[in-house]
Amino acid sequence: MPRIVVIGGVAAGMSAASQAKRREPKAEVVVFERGPYVSYGACGMPYNIQDPARDIEDLVVISPERFRTERGIEVRTGHEVVAILRAQKKVSVRAVETGKVDELAYDELIIATGASPMRPPLPGIELPGVMVLRDLQDGRAMKRFLDEVRPRSVVVIGAGYIGMEMADVLRQRGLAVTVIEKLPDILPGYEPEITRQVRAELTRRGVSVQVDVATESIEPGGKRDSDGLIVRTSAGLHTTDMVIVSVGVRPNVALAQAAGLVLGPTGAIAVDAELRTNDPHIFAAGDCAEAHHRVLDAPAYVPLGSTANKQGKIAGANAVGAHERFAGIVGTAGFRVFDLEVARTGLGQSDIDRLGLKAVRAASTHQSKAHGYPGAKPLTTVVFAEKGTGRLLGAQMVGADVVAKRIDVFATALTARMAMDAIEELDLAYAPPFAPVYDPVLIAATVTLKELAKAGRG
Amino acid sequence: MPRIVVIGGVAAGMSAASQAKRREPKAEVVVFERGPYVSYGACGMPYNIQDPARDIEDLVVISPERFRTERGIEVRTGHEVVAILRAQKKVSVRAVETGKVDELAYDELIIATGASPMRPPLPGIELPGVMVLRDLQDGRAMKRFLDEVRPRSVVVIGAGYIGMEMADVLRQRGLAVTVIEKLPDILPGYEPEITRQVRAELTRRGVSVQVDVATESIEPGGKRDSDGLIVRTSAGLHTTDMVIVSVGVRPNVALAQAAGLVLGPTGAIAVDAELRTNDPHIFAAGDCAEAHHRVLDAPAYVPLGSTANKQGKIAGANAVGAHERFAGIVGTAGFRVFDLEVARTGLGQSDIDRLGLKAVRAASTHQSKAHGYPGAKPLTTVVFAEKGTGRLLGAQMVGADVVAKRIDVFATALTARMAMDAIEELDLAYAPPFAPVYDPVLIAATVTLKELAKAGRG
Repeated sequence: MPRIVVIGGVAAGMSAASQAKRREPKAEVVVFERGPYVSYGACGMPYNIQDPARDIEDLVVISPERFRTERGIEVRTGHEVVAILRAQKKVSVRAVETGKVDELAYDELIIATGASPMRPPLPGIELPGVMVLRDLQDGRAMKRFLDEVRPRSVVVIGAGYIGMEMADVLRQRGLAVTVIEKLPDILPGYEPEITRQVRAELTRRGVSVQVDVATESIEPGGKRDSDGLIVRTSAGLHTTDMVIVSVGVRPNVALAQAAGLVLGPTGAIAVDAELRTNDPHIFAAGDCAEAHHRVLDAPAYVPLGSTANKQGKIAGANAVGAHERFAGIVGTAGFRVFDLEVARTGLGQSDIDRLGLKAVRAASTHQSKAHGYPGAKPLTTVVFAEKGTGRLLGAQMVGADVVAKRIDVFATALTARMAMDAIEELDLAYAPPFAPVYDPVLIAATVTLKELAKAGRG
Repeated sequence: MPRIVVIGGVAAGMSAASQAKRREPKAEVVVFERGPYVSYGACGMPYNIQDPARDIEDLVVISPERFRTERGIEVRTGHEVVAILRAQKKVSVRAVETGKVDELAYDELIIATGASPMRPPLPGIELPGVMVLRDLQDGRAMKRFLDEVRPRSVVVIGAGYIGMEMADVLRQRGLAVTVIEKLPDILPGYEPEITRQVRAELTRRGVSVQVDVATESIEPGGKRDSDGLIVRTSAGLHTTDMVIVSVGVRPNVALAQAAGLVLGPTGAIAVDAELRTNDPHIFAAGDCAEAHHRVLDAPAYVPLGSTANKQGKIAGANAVGAHERFAGIVGTAGFRVFDLEVARTGLGQSDIDRLGLKAVRAASTHQSKAHGYPGAKPLTTVVFAEKGTGRLLGAQMVGADVVAKRIDVFATALTARMAMDAIEELDLAYAPPFAPVYDPVLIAATVTLKELAKAGRG
């Protein structure tokens, strides 16, 4: 009866535990989770926070008790693994409440320690009212702050996905929202045609956006907590009741690193296709691990719940003797901000530049539904394709109608290594309520083919 | 200066004319259209009819005058081509108004005569108030009837796409709607898991649906037109103010057939990949022509506006010397009825049976958005995959959220001849507002893989 130990009980960890137990019911599966919660939909936190009537705990899918009674999985919350003793195949575990440290032997170990929000070394970042949003405890703290302190304004530092989502939901809760981004544009990795529309939408909804502005410090607004905060930036001061720091995440690799496990070029834990680390009895999955990028044909770090679940499932199966392979990602990601869906897949301009690929770039805007159908919205697409081969390299899209599931067509085409002419020929669903005769995906392909033809002649 | 003659001025015809002129500005391009309108979005008619405030002519994209002045294309509405004189490379054209017949020589001819609604030989089918919906004149007549006669009830004979769309829009205009279908189920070609939900939606919206019921005759309800109609069926009588006959379409091939052009096994005009008929100077495109079905690897007849536009464009290019090939279709189609989107791609059960393919079939229902996200709806998917190879053969989907653009993922996968394991591995866009961690497409793939595994062991 092998014992499988899983470190971390959110997406990848609980997927791994569940899959291991399902494949090998005789296995003993033990999950250690540092926090009080397991198995929750962290990506849903912004939308839960938007709704004062919902408990943050609604995001918990399955409780530790149910894992125990219904699935036979031992879940120990409030337990932090502090060391992996590879030579002895043991973990050292500290009970958070008592500080007591115990050891537990494993046959196979799965590291699913996730990622942590980056906290820039800003003076004042530890002040009350300065928050991050990563785990359910962060969400609970933010929700409590909103309910109890009733902030009327927020400064969001960092204009990535979480920054955009929080700007949206807090604006919809009635707060005055200012987004500060130190780079020259919001949404790193997105093309200007896309970011321009997101910025316009933010402005239209009353969110103030400042780019090229560095945050220098956060200071108390007065002597009492209710005096709020002052955010000092390269462009001036902001008084605010609340600050959200959303400047990205980094993989939690300290434990793995201390145990001598190899990190990859991205800084996350290196794994093979079976999600094994350099120790054959240790797997890693989710936001602490790299993923093979099928377009780059190299490891990448794109921490997302969807990938975490898939990797967890495969690591769990392989921990009990399967030999499943994670095919990898193509770099698909997306989010919603107010009325706009925004999504991308494949390579962006910076990937193309870094790899020295010869590519064309084509932007186009076309209606989401048929001529004259109510509710048709303009969708803007940017496509990158390789000169010579005509192969799709990447695509990005924005608009106030179905965008993400259109990006899925590009993601599928990327996986199949389709060239743009094959994409132009796709037989996509057509009826006035959901597409024009030529879907924006097809038009984007046609426009890209024209650019390829020009480049061929050039 | 070659003269290109196009017969038919709707989707395929105007696409062909426009493309020919764009590729070869020196060509003389003449379009003959029997009716008064060209270049209109016929598929949009139900939604235009739904809205009393809109003119049916709003569906016209470009007027004959604009074709003439802006594109240099000669469009002759009210002119019916009555014969193709292949030996002389001429067409005989009758002016509908005067009855005068003229001849015009062509260098290349493009047949885009479309399709006509089937009219079963029912006694009373010619009565006032019995209507079909195919061309813009039909739409105009229907709209005028709705405005002037103000019918309070309608019987829709035939539960295909048009029948479903008309049931929807007329119910929303306040009519009592009864749909009568002579087959045992609505929506031929769709699986019971799909049709059951559509029937439930129709019922929920107050539309009466009767299947396995043959219409026997239509009779006047009294001496005056305002007395309405009586529809006599195998299950009894219906008094109604209006009848819509929507039992399918057939390709308009009489002209081609009389000229000795070859029809294919489907009864539509046979064309090669360049959309040439058996006469090297005559092309056919759109609803009068066959299309190569990439999954069947055989000609098929799936008349749709999207295919008509694509074929027209290629026929137009080839008529002025290009050698473009129409890659074909994969059988994608869809529609909306009330809150439900319904779509399919690839083969259905009857195709699989006819071809004697060994296939598994897997149905699954999964939420359209993340756990707990407002507005998540159950989507039901049915997938067919080939035993042994695991190759996707077809998919169908229904639900009250994004369905058609999810079918597009299957359509793309079909085109790339993907197996189900490759589909399960797709990196699709994920964020709570538009997908759960495992998109319903991915879950459907997983469920299908389980069926394949069972079949492999069986």
